Amino acid sequence: MSEQLFHFVGNGSVTTPAGFRAAGVTAGFKRTGAPDFAMLLSETPAHFAGAFTSCTFAAAPVQLCRKRVLESPRLSAAVINSGNANACTGAPGLANAEETCRLAAEALNLAPETIAVASTGRIGVQLPMDIIARGIRLAAAELSTTGGNAAARAIMTTDTVPKSVAVQFQIGDRTVSIGAMTKGAGMIDPHLQVPHATMLCFITTDADADNELLAEMLGTGVADSFNRITVDGDMSTNDTVLILANGHSGVTIRKGTPEAKLFKSALDTVMRELARRMVADGEGATKFVEVKVVNAPTREDAKLCAEAVANSLLCKTAWFGNDPNWGRVVAALGYSGATFDPNRTDIFYDDMPVVRQGGDAGTREEELADIIRKREFTVLIDLHAGEEEYWVWTCDVSYDYVKINADYHT
Amino acid sequence: MSEQLFHFVGNGSVTTPAGFRAAGVTAGFKRTGAPDFAMLLSETPAHFAGAFTSCTFAAAPVQLCRKRVLESPRLSAAVINSGNANACTGAPGLANAEETCRLAAEALNLAPETIAVASTGRIGVQLPMDIIARGIRLAAAELSTTGGNAAARAIMTTDTVPKSVAVQFQIGDRTVSIGAMTKGAGMIDPHLQVPHATMLCFITTDADADNELLAEMLGTGVADSFNRITVDGDMSTNDTVLILANGHSGVTIRKGTPEAKLFKSALDTVMRELARRMVADGEGATKFVEVKVVNAPTREDAKLCAEAVANSLLCKTAWFGNDPNWGRVVAALGYSGATFDPNRTDIFYDDMPVVRQGGDAGTREEELADIIRKREFTVLIDLHAGEEEYWVWTCDVSYDYVKINADYHT
Repeated sequence: MSEQLFHFVGNGSVTTPAGFRAAGVTAGFKRTGAPDFAMLLSETPAHFAGAFTSCTFAAAPVQLCRKRVLESPRLSAAVINSGNANACTGAPGLANAEETCRLAAEALNLAPETIAVASTGRIGVQLPMDIIARGIRLAAAELSTTGGNAAARAIMTTDTVPKSVAVQFQIGDRTVSIGAMTKGAGMIDPHLQVPHATMLCFITTDADADNELLAEMLGTGVADSFNRITVDGDMSTNDTVLILANGHSGVTIRKGTPEAKLFKSALDTVMRELARRMVADGEGATKFVEVKVVNAPTREDAKLCAEAVANSLLCKTAWFGNDPNWGRVVAALGYSGATFDPNRTDIFYDDMPVVRQGGDAGTREEELADIIRKREFTVLIDLHAGEEEYWVWTCDVSYDYVKINADYHT
Repeated sequence: MSEQLFHFVGNGSVTTPAGFRAAGVTAGFKRTGAPDFAMLLSETPAHFAGAFTSCTFAAAPVQLCRKRVLESPRLSAAVINSGNANACTGAPGLANAEETCRLAAEALNLAPETIAVASTGRIGVQLPMDIIARGIRLAAAELSTTGGNAAARAIMTTDTVPKSVAVQFQIGDRTVSIGAMTKGAGMIDPHLQVPHATMLCFITTDADADNELLAEMLGTGVADSFNRITVDGDMSTNDTVLILANGHSGVTIRKGTPEAKLFKSALDTVMRELARRMVADGEGATKFVEVKVVNAPTREDAKLCAEAVANSLLCKTAWFGNDPNWGRVVAALGYSGATFDPNRTDIFYDDMPVVRQGGDAGTREEELADIIRKREFTVLIDLHAGEEEYWVWTCDVSYDYVKINADYHT
C-alpha cells in the first residue's frame, strides 16, 4: 500500500509545504466579525491547475480563474473572501474580480495575471471593494509560513470547523509536502470539471510538476473525492479547487514515474480526507454515511443508484431519526433510472443484512437501528448484476439543516 | 373556456357519480385507530384505465393492477389499505394481493379479476391478512352512495386533510359526473407511466368510455397534473391512479367528439385540483409554490429548469424561512443541465422582477420578502431562448418535514 509511504503532518496546512505563506483576517464581509478574508502566497511563481463548478451561472471569480488556467503559465497567489460570492454580478462583478487581483498584485509586488481569486457567500451582491482593499492590506501584512490554519478559518461560511490537512513523504533524500485547506458545508453536490459545491479547496505542494500533469492528477483526484460527496444535492456557482506546485522541495514530478504514482496517491489521500471532513461538517449533519453500490452492470448504473440514495430526502431524514427504514433506500434505487433486477438486490447496513433478494432479510429492526444510531455507517447495495461499483459520501438532514438554510443571510 | 361548462359539486367525492358506492373503515393497520381501509364499488362492471409508478421496485398491488389493465376488460371494485405498502414483499406479497382480491370478490359476490388493490404505508412488511379480512368484512357492510368522503379519509397516511372532489356537466339533457379522491403528502415526485409517489388516486365517472380512450385521457391528464408535482423528490413504489367509468349517466364518450373534449377538460381539472391539494398538504408544507419556466429553447430544457428549482433543498428551506434568496434559484438553474444563456435570464416572484439578464433586478429585498411570505406564490423564470414552457408545483421544506420523516413509523 502506497498509503504507508506517506504520513499526515500534525496540525498540517497549506503552509506546511516549503515556500508558501498564508494569512486569514477579518476584512468586514461578515456581520459577526469572524475572519472572512484569506491570502495564500507562493514565494516563487508556481505551476498550477484548477477545477471549477459546472454550473451555467459560474461566478465572476470562477470565470477569472478559468482565464488564468488558459492564459497564465504560473500563479503566485490566491485571495479568497467569504461572505460574498460575487456570483450573478455581471460585468461589474468581473471587473471587481479583476480589480481584486490588481490590488493584491500591488500589495504583493506581483503581476495581476499571477493571482487567482475565489469567493463564497451570498449570491447577487456586488463585492464591497473597500472591504476587499482592507482585506488585502491586512492579509498582506499578516502573511506567514505558519498562517495556513488562520487562512482555513477565514474561508469558512456555515462550516463549524476549519479543514486543513498536510501529508509528507520522501523522494530520494528529499521531503515532499502536500498541504490543503477546504471549506463547504452547504450547497454541496460538486460536479467539478477540469475545468464542481460552494466548496473551495486550495492545495499546495513544494514539489514541482508541469501544469498539464497537475491538471490530469487534479481531475482524476476530484472525480474520486469532491465529486463523490453530497450534502444537499445543490451545486454551487463558485466551486473552485486550485493546486499550486512551487518546487521548493527540489523535487520535480514527471508523468509515468514511480514518484508520480506516490505523489498522486498522497494527493488523492489529501483530497479524500478533506472531502470526508466536508461531509462530516455538512450543514446540520449528525451522521456520515457511505453509500456503496457493488456488482452493477455498468459504473453509470452504480453511480445512479448511489447518488439517488445519497440525495434522497426521505433516506436522509430517516437517518437523522435513527430509523432503519430500508423501504426508502429501495424506493430511491427504484427511481434512480439504473438497470437491475429488484428481486436480486441485497442491502446491508455495515455488515448487517437488511434486504435479501429484494425483500426483508429478517434482521431484527432493533439491530438495524443500532447501526443507524452510529455517527458513521455504510449502506451497501449489491445489485448482483455485474462487476462495476461506485460509492458516494453523504450525511443526514436534520432540524439544524432547515434552521441553517431557512435563516442563512450573510 | 370549456372550464365554464362544468362546475364543482359541493362536498363532492368518488360517490358523486351515479352507480358508485364507497366505504372507509378502521381495519387495524394503523396504531392510532384511524380509518385505514377503503372500498370502492361500481354497481355494474366499469371500463377503466390505470397509471402506475415507474419505480423498479413496483409494489405487489401495482403489479397486480398492471395485470388487470392488461387482462381484465372491466373492473367492479377497488380495495385500498393505508399503513402497509405491500412493497418489497416478494412472491408472498403478490399472493397476499391476490388473496385480498379473492376475499373481496367473495364478500361482494364478484369475480376476483374485476377487483383492483392499492396499498400505501410501510415498505417491506407482509400484509397482515387477518386485518385485510376484517377490513373487507367491515367495508363491504358499510358501502354506500354517500361513502366517498369516508373512503378518502381512510386512504390517508401523513396527509392532514382528506382530498376529494367532483365536477358535473351536461351532455345533452344528461348530467355527467366525475369524482375523485387522492392521498399523498410525502414520497411525492410522481413520474407515472400509463402504466408514477405514494400517491393514490381513484377517479370515478358515470360516463362510459372504452378502456383505450380512458387510458389516453388518463395519460395526458397525469402528465399535466400529478407528474407536475413534487414534495420531496422521492418517487414511491406504490403510486397508482385508476379511473372507472360505469356509464350510469347514460352518456358514452367517444374519441374525437366535442363531448370527449368537454369530458377531458373536466377530467383534467379534477386531476389538477387534486394535484394542487396534494402539494398544499405536502408533509410539513407551509407554502405552495408554482415554478414556471417560459421561453425555453425546448420543453425538455424548461422541464429541467423547473424541476431543478422545485426540488432544490436550498430553495425549499429558503422559502420556509421567508428568504427571497434568488441566488439559490439561479444556482439550481445553473446545475439543471438545461441549455440557455445565463446573461439573458430574467426571474420574477409573482410579478416582481428579481433577476434581470442574470443579475440583481434591483427590487428591494423587503418587497421580495413580502411575496415569499405569502402562502402561495409563483417563481417565473424567463430564459429568453425560445418559445417552450413548463411548470411544476412544489412546496417548502420545514422543521415539520424533518420531524414527520425522522419519526414516521406506521
